[in-house]
Amino acid sequence: VDLLHYCTQLAQQARSASRTLATASTQTKNRWLNRAADALLDQQTAILNANEQDLSAAADLSPAMRDRLKLTPQRLASAAQGLREVALLADPVGQVRSSWVTPRGLQVSRVGTPLGVILFIYESRPNVTIDAAGLCVKSGNAILLRGGSEARHSNMALHAVLQDSLASCELPREAVQVIGVPDREAVGALLRMNHLIDLVIPRGGEGLIRRVVAEAKMPVLKHFQGNCHVYVERSADPDMAERITVNAKCQRPGVCNAAESLLIDEAVAPALLPRLARKLRESGVELRGCPRTRQLVPEAKPATEEDHAAEFLDLIMSVKVVADIEEAIAHIARYGSGHTETIVTTDLRAARHFTSAVDSAVVLVNASTRFNDGQELGLGAEIGISTDKLHARGPCGLLELTSYKYIVQGDGDVRE
Amino acid sequence: VDLLHYCTQLAQQARSASRTLATASTQTKNRWLNRAADALLDQQTAILNANEQDLSAAADLSPAMRDRLKLTPQRLASAAQGLREVALLADPVGQVRSSWVTPRGLQVSRVGTPLGVILFIYESRPNVTIDAAGLCVKSGNAILLRGGSEARHSNMALHAVLQDSLASCELPREAVQVIGVPDREAVGALLRMNHLIDLVIPRGGEGLIRRVVAEAKMPVLKHFQGNCHVYVERSADPDMAERITVNAKCQRPGVCNAAESLLIDEAVAPALLPRLARKLRESGVELRGCPRTRQLVPEAKPATEEDHAAEFLDLIMSVKVVADIEEAIAHIARYGSGHTETIVTTDLRAARHFTSAVDSAVVLVNASTRFNDGQELGLGAEIGISTDKLHARGPCGLLELTSYKYIVQGDGDVRE
Repeated sequence: VDLLHYCTQLAQQARSASRTLATASTQTKNRWLNRAADALLDQQTAILNANEQDLSAAADLSPAMRDRLKLTPQRLASAAQGLREVALLADPVGQVRSSWVTPRGLQVSRVGTPLGVILFIYESRPNVTIDAAGLCVKSGNAILLRGGSEARHSNMALHAVLQDSLASCELPREAVQVIGVPDREAVGALLRMNHLIDLVIPRGGEGLIRRVVAEAKMPVLKHFQGNCHVYVERSADPDMAERITVNAKCQRPGVCNAAESLLIDEAVAPALLPRLARKLRESGVELRGCPRTRQLVPEAKPATEEDHAAEFLDLIMSVKVVADIEEAIAHIARYGSGHTETIVTTDLRAARHFTSAVDSAVVLVNASTRFNDGQELGLGAEIGISTDKLHARGPCGLLELTSYKYIVQGDGDVRE
Repeated sequence: VDLLHYCTQLAQQARSASRTLATASTQTKNRWLNRAADALLDQQTAILNANEQDLSAAADLSPAMRDRLKLTPQRLASAAQGLREVALLADPVGQVRSSWVTPRGLQVSRVGTPLGVILFIYESRPNVTIDAAGLCVKSGNAILLRGGSEARHSNMALHAVLQDSLASCELPREAVQVIGVPDREAVGALLRMNHLIDLVIPRGGEGLIRRVVAEAKMPVLKHFQGNCHVYVERSADPDMAERITVNAKCQRPGVCNAAESLLIDEAVAPALLPRLARKLRESGVELRGCPRTRQLVPEAKPATEEDHAAEFLDLIMSVKVVADIEEAIAHIARYGSGHTETIVTTDLRAARHFTSAVDSAVVLVNASTRFNDGQELGLGAEIGISTDKLHARGPCGLLELTSYKYIVQGDGDVRE
């Protein structure tokens, strides 16, 4: 009961703060972003000390996990710089998205509005706390932050700095709240409060996301798998095909927009696939191919159905030789996850057909799948990448953290 | 098991049809809309006979329900005309919503795409079957239609006509499917198929909507209550205040955008409220007021908390005298349902403040709440009005039945 009381109070305070934030001026929100950036640097000793406490308590974490948890002066400076960059982005609230006059003379405008209260659940990186708070406040939303328990001291220290800077800009402290209790049940309780919380964004492993989807009574903006494809069409420039395939697979194999599957037209496979395979092997990639692939690349392992559907997040790639673009499109429809696909081609018709027929959040022509990213695509900072089709698809920046309303101006108009 | 098999097959066929529809040309879709309109008129005898069967079986329905169920040559003609009008609307699929070039030279376009498969659950009016099918096919979506069981023969007759016209335009028949089994469990089974169905739209009473929200594994586009407010600000033109209040309340009291609550500034209440009350009473409206209201309008009944929050859908109106615009905005935030509110004012600052601070799907200035409607606001035909903030808010037309994808054109670009 006490936990429920605590969570209800958190959510009610967030709701109340969201009302004030909704009409805060862009100037005020930007002033806060810059002041919070200053405060993070001014108070970096306290923040780094808190982070040190988390690191000491996390002696049994893997080196990779410890590295994700660790804050350094550089990482703090970079997060602070991120806030300053968010201040430079256009305010999506109050933005007139479109406007027209109806035949009878009503002036209709579709205007951006905040969503309200956002619950953000994420894993250990404490710099994400800063990024998420900045994006939510700029878009006029109050945020409830639930980071990993191993980052608790770091997050509470960041929380104090962010709240103090909000108060000093005459914004409500409760616009940014870190959930301070370690209980797992706190998240369960919050996920039922759809009258107080408008959206939940889980960011982390598939287990976390499935749990949130199963329990949440409010909408979930989620990222499932990224089984991204590189399709080398028959007219592809061989050098470009090599450059894009290697970059998409190897530049950062552990992230969602890394390629997991290679498709290549049978017309060019005999000449090109052995070359691509050699380059991928040189970068340490294990290939798992269809029978045609294994004829051309004998050292490739046989690919199972699961391999074609897998998000490896590792130096492994499934390979399939396809008869033509239609087979490539059908393969992607069957095995893909709707995240990111690219075609390498010099043929205009192939490019047009591929981008029209492939139903993924981001479809590229002659560019690496690694470009599915808010910054790279010019949306500014992102809070995540959506694999949903409703509300937001692909990288989610400020615009995707908002809704809209219709403002209608009449002159005493009545119906009929 | 058989029911599950039937539902799975329906949904799989819809999924497969949605792939074909997604790349159908605007020309083909418009040809179908016009051909379906012709076919509805050509085959009106069969349709009206089927409707007659439903009406005979529904002898125990109320006259109002029988009227909703009834098809006439006029109603069919009007539904057919609706399809022709949808043909005239812009195709949201393939529409470039925005486009830019990133600093490194990637050309990024945000392009409209269909959602995929939509499950539409509605109550008895069979003409809704025609409207919904037209909107979904035009927006490139396959639709599964679940109408009320009392309209079953009518819907099966419409289904045959719509499917034949699809086939004659070389579109997949399964783009429009009526769920042909009466079992209530069929809906439950379909609501779990989030791998095959992208969106469910329930249209009907609150019980239906709550059931769908509780059971659906896929997103739900829903309409809850419309507790719409008319706020008469102190500077309002008295004639306009009267005209708008009476129209908003009385023009069609049973619909969601009818006003349920009247707020009036205390500065003008003594002079204006008795006049408004008299006009409302002349139209048969029962008033339920706050204590200040009852001083000015003695015959008003006392309003409870529930009355201020109620969607009466009837000739009843709650009334509250407020100190100023701030109290009006706070009252709407507390009791409103976020559907539609209007301010009557001549003061520019009041209009700007009200439209900015009130968080509802449609906020009007000097116009009746009854204008919250897709046709009236110039969106074209609508499939419903959303009281959600995610994805779509307010009237939902063709645009709201779509998603988008990013198409990115590079020139061999790779990251880093």
